[in-house]
Amino acid sequence: MRIVVLAGGIGGARFLRGLLQAAPEADVTVIGNTGDDIHLFGLKVCPDLDTVMYTLGGGINEEQGWGRTDETFQVKSELAAYGVGPEWFGLGDRDFATHIVRTQMIAAGYPLSAVTEALCARWNPGVRLLPMTDDRVETHVAVEIDGEKKVIHFQEYWVKLRASVPAEAVVPVGADQAKPAPGVLEAIASADVILFPPSNPVVSVGTILAVPGIREAIADAGVPVVGLSPIIGDAPVRGMADKVLAAVGVEATAAAVASHYGSGLLDGWLVDTVDAGTVGEIEAAGIRCRAVPLLMTDTDTTAEMARQALALAEEVRA
Amino acid sequence: MRIVVLAGGIGGARFLRGLLQAAPEADVTVIGNTGDDIHLFGLKVCPDLDTVMYTLGGGINEEQGWGRTDETFQVKSELAAYGVGPEWFGLGDRDFATHIVRTQMIAAGYPLSAVTEALCARWNPGVRLLPMTDDRVETHVAVEIDGEKKVIHFQEYWVKLRASVPAEAVVPVGADQAKPAPGVLEAIASADVILFPPSNPVVSVGTILAVPGIREAIADAGVPVVGLSPIIGDAPVRGMADKVLAAVGVEATAAAVASHYGSGLLDGWLVDTVDAGTVGEIEAAGIRCRAVPLLMTDTDTTAEMARQALALAEEVRA
Repeated sequence: MRIVVLAGGIGGARFLRGLLQAAPEADVTVIGNTGDDIHLFGLKVCPDLDTVMYTLGGGINEEQGWGRTDETFQVKSELAAYGVGPEWFGLGDRDFATHIVRTQMIAAGYPLSAVTEALCARWNPGVRLLPMTDDRVETHVAVEIDGEKKVIHFQEYWVKLRASVPAEAVVPVGADQAKPAPGVLEAIASADVILFPPSNPVVSVGTILAVPGIREAIADAGVPVVGLSPIIGDAPVRGMADKVLAAVGVEATAAAVASHYGSGLLDGWLVDTVDAGTVGEIEAAGIRCRAVPLLMTDTDTTAEMARQALALAEEVRA
Repeated sequence: MRIVVLAGGIGGARFLRGLLQAAPEADVTVIGNTGDDIHLFGLKVCPDLDTVMYTLGGGINEEQGWGRTDETFQVKSELAAYGVGPEWFGLGDRDFATHIVRTQMIAAGYPLSAVTEALCARWNPGVRLLPMTDDRVETHVAVEIDGEKKVIHFQEYWVKLRASVPAEAVVPVGADQAKPAPGVLEAIASADVILFPPSNPVVSVGTILAVPGIREAIADAGVPVVGLSPIIGDAPVRGMADKVLAAVGVEATAAAVASHYGSGLLDGWLVDTVDAGTVGEIEAAGIRCRAVPLLMTDTDTTAEMARQALALAEEVRA
């Protein structure tokens, strides 16, 4: 079975770990969000791709969900001693090596997709990890701080400000000119199932869908497209998805997110058992829906979520 | 008193520390060798400039003479895990930060001289440290390995091969097209004394002199030019200067090095007491010479060497 998954960072990566346990024989292609990529210290950092790679490759810091295990911060502290920041982005020494290799390969002319493949040769994530695009896309957020309107990088909004001010707009800058990376459309076209993990529907899955051709390819694939709600009982499971949902005028509810994706794209939707009351509403909108436990407390629980998603896909197909 | 010093790495840096103790009120400008610069992992590394900066700024690993104190090697070990080398060049995590800042500033358009000034703002080395040039110069070494003639980077010859094969030629690639960095010729023209520390006469001081204009400016400055022999009793004090001296057809003796610089450039020359027998020969060649202890065993001893060099300069001037 060929499964395509559109993944952001932590939520996507953890879901994938469950999926690989649930469907060990499946051929899984991950289309990773690169809208949260950022250039720091002259290096190209791809937080979502790395979170997927480290999580599936056994190198992730399990507690925080991003970054490397057994990490140290000598480089960062020396950079700070030179007065070079930002200090709010936690790049560790081990993590730096990944960005150094990536930056060196990009400078040598390799596209991000080839770089990602080379990095994954070390980590053996058990999936084929493709960036959504080889072109530069950077998600920016319009905010008002102390009465002044500003447009800041998504990472500044998310990591530095911790989404503490309302997002007035979320713009994947460059997405409209971006082309899907090699293999992306082919993977979608030959998929048996397409899954949206409980990743951020705006800045993760939404950004991937903003690359011209990807949304259309998914809609036209003619295979079940099933998502898992990142919102449980009117709040994001983790992260601050509600802040960016507000920016696109979507309520932070499982039903509103399903309707935001829309029945033209989404065939099935899993909501948590606490949201069982919204199943009828979602099905009335043309999206088949089931209520199952959606907290990714451990890999076994997450594998069960993945099995439910695949079961819903088969139900849709039938 | 304005002193200009042409410095390589370890020997130059240690001599400078003694000089600053001997002449705390002096205005010291260091013209640093950049011929041993190397691009590693996409980063610009300037070993000699950094050795001077770290040594005078209190950040040097005293035992090995280069690199940072309390160093760790996480980045390097991760790069190796990606299969990215070279592994023979010992870049530590703290050191990496320097190269990251430098590379980022150069990519932003700053010349190396401005970058060096910015890095020194943190280290306060007590001297004005100028790279010999802002242009790219890379010392290459012609060797024969297993019957095959090759031209390799100086660092590969020095650090990887540890000068274990004869150097057939030493070429500062790019030097003939290089211009002295801003401030270099001005510092020489306004110097009261010019010193050649016991640095490598071929790949350190020799490379600096290979930048068109620098040798001429020193010869024309009309002030005492005094050097200290890096060779004591027919062997280099440290390092492998004899290997590269052979490549330029110069014997590894204090007298031969003095004669290599030549009386057109050098006014005074200090040899070690074990080489007292050569003083007459050197003076006969038109270079005033004294035999004094030249082992830089500690800063006090080195300060005394610097005092002797300054005394010889005054003798020349008188």
